[in-house]
Amino acid sequence: MDTVAVLGTGLIGTSFALALKSAGFRGRIIGVSSPASVRAAVERGAVDEPAELAVAVRQADLVYLAQPIQKILDLIPEVARHARPDALVTDAGSTKRRIVECAGRRLGESQFLGGHPMAGKESRGAAAADADLFRDRPYFLTPARPEMIDEPRIAGFMDWLVRTGAKPAVLSAGEHDRLVAATSHLPQMISTALASLLARQPDAAILAESGGPGLADMTRLALSSHDIWADILATNGDEISRLLEMAEIRLREIRTSLDDAKPAFDEAYSFAERVPRRTV
Amino acid sequence: MDTVAVLGTGLIGTSFALALKSAGFRGRIIGVSSPASVRAAVERGAVDEPAELAVAVRQADLVYLAQPIQKILDLIPEVARHARPDALVTDAGSTKRRIVECAGRRLGESQFLGGHPMAGKESRGAAAADADLFRDRPYFLTPARPEMIDEPRIAGFMDWLVRTGAKPAVLSAGEHDRLVAATSHLPQMISTALASLLARQPDAAILAESGGPGLADMTRLALSSHDIWADILATNGDEISRLLEMAEIRLREIRTSLDDAKPAFDEAYSFAERVPRRTV
Repeated sequence: MDTVAVLGTGLIGTSFALALKSAGFRGRIIGVSSPASVRAAVERGAVDEPAELAVAVRQADLVYLAQPIQKILDLIPEVARHARPDALVTDAGSTKRRIVECAGRRLGESQFLGGHPMAGKESRGAAAADADLFRDRPYFLTPARPEMIDEPRIAGFMDWLVRTGAKPAVLSAGEHDRLVAATSHLPQMISTALASLLARQPDAAILAESGGPGLADMTRLALSSHDIWADILATNGDEISRLLEMAEIRLREIRTSLDDAKPAFDEAYSFAERVPRRTV
Repeated sequence: MDTVAVLGTGLIGTSFALALKSAGFRGRIIGVSSPASVRAAVERGAVDEPAELAVAVRQADLVYLAQPIQKILDLIPEVARHARPDALVTDAGSTKRRIVECAGRRLGESQFLGGHPMAGKESRGAAAADADLFRDRPYFLTPARPEMIDEPRIAGFMDWLVRTGAKPAVLSAGEHDRLVAATSHLPQMISTALASLLARQPDAAILAESGGPGLADMTRLALSSHDIWADILATNGDEISRLLEMAEIRLREIRTSLDDAKPAFDEAYSFAERVPRRTV
């Protein structure tokens, strides 16, 4: 792997480039993004040179798509036109079925590997990028067929991921989308629902301002912008709907047995105690 | 105010005693609790001497009830038997209607003032007590009639609260219980519902372990023990049920308009941005 093209030099793309270099990658990293974004990635030392998409993709052994989901879907046809037959194209989009399906129609099967690093930050952009962003975090990979992960270019890419400190985990695109619906999308929508419900109370300002750490925790995700979520809701709506409906049922069950809530608290504890927490 | 009896020398009772002394109180503080608990409060320098309930209450200008709700309800008759007519009895229980109503039947009206400091910690007991626990936090007071707060013994107690750094706020017991149902009890039950729903998924362990900071936030309250919550659910169940039902409806509304979720995100943001957050 001599040349890597990073498409989208925001937080994830720039962090991937920094992580590769920090893991010992000595080849060239070409950045494709808006002028301001790619300039920031060059200034961070993550990207060696900016280029147009076609120019960058034609030279690349690895094409890393690090834009929002819809942008990835929009670019796949153009990437497919220019990608070398022996190149690997991978992405970091946060839902996988739609992207894997779209790439499967345009790229050769062993040319594409869906990916999703479970890493992020509240700050965005190249300025917030971090060579250690992926360290000790799961990095989901969703090959069209499980056997594909033994193919040399995919195995080689996974080796680089391991060297960045990421923990690659292979699953199908469907399994991935079901998993993140539960661990990420459902919590987001519940936080949004809670905060929007409280926003409608007549004394909303007083409620917000008298909230303690519990309310702060439960409404932090509600600070997320819809910009980021629109693509996720559009491409994983079926799984999210299924879980939201289960949540409605679970709330009703709990509401109608408030005087016997110990089993719910115990069950909830058994889950919550396994969730990794930063010690404060 | 020369003599204070603190009944229940856990986190809140011991912190109140420490806060009083730190605010310049030079009188005696008598502690009433289990032998181990009151010993810990004496060791912290919060309590000057332990005593039996009747002995302590008979001497007290201020009786501070800092036990769990049901324990407060159980003790009010005995406190009423021994309290001096000119003493003020107050409490720190986390719901107020039931306690104010019970105290109203047993104590003279101007003898009792319901209270609820919006302060806490994950650690419990006298060892975790802190003279600054109440500082800059709301301290709700729920007099049976609003005019009562001008009576000298109540005004005097409020002066001491201000000197501890607390922010007293006067409201009715009903307003209080509606407010904490929204800011504390609903978030708790939603966290419990989410975590118990995820606990029931076939791949619950994988879901928990692959969760990021968002899932950690949304399930932290689910680590709470039912012990603490049983009394709250028993004494504020009507308000909690009302809000849980609204949450079910809000989730359904959001579920059935996932492709047009921007208004919900914007509404949620308008609430979440007003919730006080510790900067990390």
